[in-house]
Amino acid sequence: MPLVLASKSPRRAQILELLGVKFRVEPPCCEENAENIPSRNIPLELAKRKALNVSEKFQKDFVLGGDTLVFCENEVLGKPKNENDAYEMLKKLRNRVHSVISGLALCQNNEVLFTGESQTEVLFRDYSDLEILNYISTMEYADKAGAYGAQGKGARFIKSINGCFYNVMGLPIALTLEALNKVE
Amino acid sequence: MPLVLASKSPRRAQILELLGVKFRVEPPCCEENAENIPSRNIPLELAKRKALNVSEKFQKDFVLGGDTLVFCENEVLGKPKNENDAYEMLKKLRNRVHSVISGLALCQNNEVLFTGESQTEVLFRDYSDLEILNYISTMEYADKAGAYGAQGKGARFIKSINGCFYNVMGLPIALTLEALNKVE
Repeated sequence: MPLVLASKSPRRAQILELLGVKFRVEPPCCEENAENIPSRNIPLELAKRKALNVSEKFQKDFVLGGDTLVFCENEVLGKPKNENDAYEMLKKLRNRVHSVISGLALCQNNEVLFTGESQTEVLFRDYSDLEILNYISTMEYADKAGAYGAQGKGARFIKSINGCFYNVMGLPIALTLEALNKVE
Repeated sequence: MPLVLASKSPRRAQILELLGVKFRVEPPCCEENAENIPSRNIPLELAKRKALNVSEKFQKDFVLGGDTLVFCENEVLGKPKNENDAYEMLKKLRNRVHSVISGLALCQNNEVLFTGESQTEVLFRDYSDLEILNYISTMEYADKAGAYGAQGKGARFIKSINGCFYNVMGLPIALTLEALNKVE
């Protein structure tokens, strides 16, 4: 059965490849406007929106949508708007635990067949301001919720995690395998 | 100051590169015979042996040694000897928590300047025998303690972890940065 990944994130595609799954990518073109959604519900809600948006175009295909956000003391950290924004986020996350929550949704024929969530607690080191500035100069932060990439140079900020590592990268593996059980 | 990585593991080199550290690799040629060491002490003891072995040859350089083992219910799982061995290890680890322990040692002039350990608990999914066989056919298991690679196709076995992800790959990042503070 053809599987479609409704995401333009290269990391989600990379993780799905790791699982040996055959799929193609179709980026969704729905609004990521989450203003009227309680923040805790955003990842799952946007995952469903993305999957349903792409499912409208490719009715017979199984469509997998995902969304990942960083929560730090009840504040949502999305993708940083600029260098300053990234600097403030990485200062806020320093020496502290934050949560990374991904929502996942599988659709077919405009119907939601599976939804699930994965939550990972991430403890950051007590790094220096200089470490933040050096990291920002690599531009890795640019397209990442919370302004860091756990699989790249941003790995240096992480002291330990509790949960799924690949969730922090954007696609929780065990949950994805659960969703894919519906496809086979 | 020149840094030497006393390890032939490509994963340790890859993680050190991620940290933006300049180093060269000099594989140790000491025995990995750990018969007379209590199993819990093996990672740290072998890390010291590796670092000291290379330090003898390059006295002035800072030498970093590491060793990683998998512990499952008081049994040590090293690198599998063959396919059957890998199959038995992955059956043993299924649907269960195991510990990955890395020892780390930094030496200079035959002296140990820093030692430390990192421990990560890893919970495996309840995967099928077929998943194990498919994984073994990729040969990824061959040079890995516990017969899986957390950063490769073996990621599918992991449900969640508690601790440092890069420790499971072979080089705990926060601990390595602590050791490297002695170099600067």
